[in-house]
Amino acid sequence: MINTLDQNIVAAIHSVVGAGPVGLHEPTFSGNEWLYVKECLDSTFVSSVGKFVDRFEDDLAAYTGAKHAVAVVNGTAALHIALLLAGVKANDEVLVPALTFIATANAISYCGATPHFVDSEDTTLGIATVKLRDYLQTHTQQHSGQCVNIVTGQVIRAMVPMHTYGHPVDINGLLAVAHDFNIVMVEDAAESLGSTYHGQHTGTFGLMGTLSFNGNKTITTGGGGAILTNDATIARRAKHITTTAKLPHAWDFIHDEIGYNYRLPNLNAALGCAQLEKLTAKLIAKRTLFKHYQAAFASVEGVKLVAEPAQCFSNYWLQTIMLNADQAHQRDAVLQATNQAGLMTRPVWRLLHQLTPFTNSPRMDLSTAVQLAQQLINIPSSPSLI
Amino acid sequence: MINTLDQNIVAAIHSVVGAGPVGLHEPTFSGNEWLYVKECLDSTFVSSVGKFVDRFEDDLAAYTGAKHAVAVVNGTAALHIALLLAGVKANDEVLVPALTFIATANAISYCGATPHFVDSEDTTLGIATVKLRDYLQTHTQQHSGQCVNIVTGQVIRAMVPMHTYGHPVDINGLLAVAHDFNIVMVEDAAESLGSTYHGQHTGTFGLMGTLSFNGNKTITTGGGGAILTNDATIARRAKHITTTAKLPHAWDFIHDEIGYNYRLPNLNAALGCAQLEKLTAKLIAKRTLFKHYQAAFASVEGVKLVAEPAQCFSNYWLQTIMLNADQAHQRDAVLQATNQAGLMTRPVWRLLHQLTPFTNSPRMDLSTAVQLAQQLINIPSSPSLI
Repeated sequence: MINTLDQNIVAAIHSVVGAGPVGLHEPTFSGNEWLYVKECLDSTFVSSVGKFVDRFEDDLAAYTGAKHAVAVVNGTAALHIALLLAGVKANDEVLVPALTFIATANAISYCGATPHFVDSEDTTLGIATVKLRDYLQTHTQQHSGQCVNIVTGQVIRAMVPMHTYGHPVDINGLLAVAHDFNIVMVEDAAESLGSTYHGQHTGTFGLMGTLSFNGNKTITTGGGGAILTNDATIARRAKHITTTAKLPHAWDFIHDEIGYNYRLPNLNAALGCAQLEKLTAKLIAKRTLFKHYQAAFASVEGVKLVAEPAQCFSNYWLQTIMLNADQAHQRDAVLQATNQAGLMTRPVWRLLHQLTPFTNSPRMDLSTAVQLAQQLINIPSSPSLI
Repeated sequence: MINTLDQNIVAAIHSVVGAGPVGLHEPTFSGNEWLYVKECLDSTFVSSVGKFVDRFEDDLAAYTGAKHAVAVVNGTAALHIALLLAGVKANDEVLVPALTFIATANAISYCGATPHFVDSEDTTLGIATVKLRDYLQTHTQQHSGQCVNIVTGQVIRAMVPMHTYGHPVDINGLLAVAHDFNIVMVEDAAESLGSTYHGQHTGTFGLMGTLSFNGNKTITTGGGGAILTNDATIARRAKHITTTAKLPHAWDFIHDEIGYNYRLPNLNAALGCAQLEKLTAKLIAKRTLFKHYQAAFASVEGVKLVAEPAQCFSNYWLQTIMLNADQAHQRDAVLQATNQAGLMTRPVWRLLHQLTPFTNSPRMDLSTAVQLAQQLINIPSSPSLI
């Protein structure tokens, strides 16, 4: 009897994670979470001021090697502020993969700018460097040191590469493109805490990088995010405008610009400090889970497991299978069968240029992203599964 | 020997709160805070999904009498979303007191709209109803059912009255103005959880009301806020666009509009549920503190304690003294002396039309607000002080 692809995939996942049901990615609180959160409550400093925010920022900077980390309320807020500080203004365009979560395009919209969608590679799952360079060569002109979209006449101010599912993008290639075309890089490392490219932590290559600590991420603060940067002035500005742009004073309320209420509460930072202590253990578990899946899928025809790119260390945030091109039509059947079997799986995000708010946004040929969207499926990835 | 005003005020506060040092408003966690937060951690649902968010929303609706409450990440986010759902668009104007916290004007700016500053009454410390009506009469015209500013040609879409320091504004008067001039009311009840106007909870009169649970508020969630409304459609829309406008689906990511990542994490909601259980006790304590201050200040010449308006119940969020007009020049001396004595005090927020980002915003005569800013001083207000 020949099993079908969806049955084989269900069996392979079951062989790794057991009977289930299992979620896609669940947090674990096995360290000092109670201790720090209780200490935070006992201190009464649960809100905008408190030692855990400072400590979390210091710990993030130390872990990633960024000179500065500014904790904020979530990854979307981190992207919004990073784009503002990158100089993104109304009517600018920002290059962003069509294959990413909508938060990035939303954050671009908050600045009054427009997302300009670019294609992905099937190796890294991130922005396709060579294709982007060719596209910019033929579709943009330099005016006064700015990259102008020939078709729309708008300035392409920034690019936001994303490290998909934790796998580092071709960051050196993209830095060269950004440099050659006068485009600022803001690195979306929401999914890649713990991932490195040639030994350097993702999120520390661009002018700024952003992190997310949402409940489904490798570590969580309930809701939270951070901006990484090596630029002291930008770090100061990020702290200032995420805390209502208030000038320091014993009692007076002077705000010198339009600011945001984006600071991370101390309560959430307390959770983050404890979670960060367990990050290395989680990364080891997630890598072990990858190896288990690799063994399980070795004998399954028609599908392969996505592995970290060469010279990269991936946090393997979401384990991902890629259906062979000739099996792509079976994607929904696989999603159906796995979810029905209590194994939570999901496809990539609906490509951003296919979503109502962004159907009219500028874009290059997106054929690889469209193809990948039919082939990629995330499978249960919690570090607790090993 | 005749004591100076600042010395008399220091002595009066000391007589109520003891030697100090004392802060302006500090949270207390004397109920089920740790229990619920621990339960939340143990459930692993710390983030966007979880029973404490649902419960907190239900509890807020039950307490305030609003049909719906939508919990969000802070009061600024609540204002931003409420204004969007009130129909505030780019180039609209929104009426807002000059005497309020900058968050309101910032939220207006996030919509691309402009704050239009209005004066306050010295009784309620909120918007001056009669003066506003007279101003609108002479400075606006109705065009197709919209209130148009004659000077700027822009639509005055909404007004955002605020219940200053917990004291209810003249809400019936303002509702009549809003009705007569076709202006939508969004009520800023950030400071007035527990305060009622003619027996009805503040924040439930306008099309929407907003709350804040920042660390300095009567109850806190670390950081948090909520939108109150009696309109089921608005409540649904508020939940939708504060949770990235994602359509429900087992695995697909379809977002039908530009949304926000403004949901309150379950961890913070757990804290809120416990805090809400203690709200009544806190309100009693704060009212007792007011009475103690009343007795202490009865014999101090040149200053009076601000009391709740007639037919209103104030939560007395921040206890406030008002220097007599002929003593207003002593404000900074009083601030200096009290803070030096370890008694944290502060003046009103710098009036919004005096802040760099809003100096060019439209405004009416603001003479009462300017006068009040020289007379009002908040004094230590924690419920734990009695």
